[in-house]
Amino acid sequence: MKVRFVTSNRSKFEEVRKIGDSYGIEVGWVEKEYMEPQGGELEDVARISAEILANEVETPFFIEDSGLFIHALKGFPGVYSSYVFKTIGNEGILRLMEGIKNRDASFVCVIAYHDGESIRTFRGEVKGKIAGEMRGGYGFGYDPIFEVDGRTFAEMGDEKNEVSHRRRALEKFFSWLAKSF
Amino acid sequence: MKVRFVTSNRSKFEEVRKIGDSYGIEVGWVEKEYMEPQGGELEDVARISAEILANEVETPFFIEDSGLFIHALKGFPGVYSSYVFKTIGNEGILRLMEGIKNRDASFVCVIAYHDGESIRTFRGEVKGKIAGEMRGGYGFGYDPIFEVDGRTFAEMGDEKNEVSHRRRALEKFFSWLAKSF
Repeated sequence: MKVRFVTSNRSKFEEVRKIGDSYGIEVGWVEKEYMEPQGGELEDVARISAEILANEVETPFFIEDSGLFIHALKGFPGVYSSYVFKTIGNEGILRLMEGIKNRDASFVCVIAYHDGESIRTFRGEVKGKIAGEMRGGYGFGYDPIFEVDGRTFAEMGDEKNEVSHRRRALEKFFSWLAKSF
Repeated sequence: MKVRFVTSNRSKFEEVRKIGDSYGIEVGWVEKEYMEPQGGELEDVARISAEILANEVETPFFIEDSGLFIHALKGFPGVYSSYVFKTIGNEGILRLMEGIKNRDASFVCVIAYHDGESIRTFRGEVKGKIAGEMRGGYGFGYDPIFEVDGRTFAEMGDEKNEVSHRRRALEKFFSWLAKSF
């Protein structure tokens, strides 16, 4: 079974492709940037983006949107995680969290699948903590500062793909997809 | 002459109304939230938002979008200034700027006017510095940390409306509007 994934992020595509492999699903890459709306929850962003994108990309396809939600920062960087990473980066997040005791954070991933007629979303979440410093050499984005059970995503290497928010959302999506064909 | 301004922000409306008065233009308030796209420059955001909004609001109308662009933070918070203010606020910005020597920043405002057929944008910019601490009791948003010639916008009171990015964009817009009727 083959399904198209629209993203401009190569690292994200590689991660999703690997997880697809373990389900016997071949993930094809449509390398493309697309418009996302501001505001709302991740689900809203993914759903509206998929809706607009269906005018330009052949269905069926899926997109994913993920974000890091830090409790002590009222959910920042949230749906703007990608922009915040490109500007203030992990250094900025660590600076904002200096001296803050409550380090709870969630990584959330939403998949939106457009089958040509309607859109279905799948949500995965993993709860963790913001580390005191960057650690680990794998992954991308906020992986070096997001810690689960004492290790950052960037310290876990491929093990990350067993527990991540993206894995959890893809698990739901791929199991549903396998049943629906 | 009367023109409708769409915004959900009362402080912004009040500021624009006052500037309108000084041009003999009556600004009416359409209190409404609307969808803005992620990414791109302020002009793109304002233009696309106005385009979508024209399906819901009677033309002609105008909207405004503004942002604080901090040079040392690669333009952060930029087009997401409003979200960043609601989450990490001025305290967060000051924290990110601790120990940073280059404090240059710009406040930019873009007006998008939809006349029913097409959209025209007007841009105003004011260059300043990020203050070392919050100062002043007027205004809203980033006003207490944005400094021009040694005083923050929040210390200037109504004087801010003589020099602000919003004033500059509105000046261009209102002069054009007065001529085109």
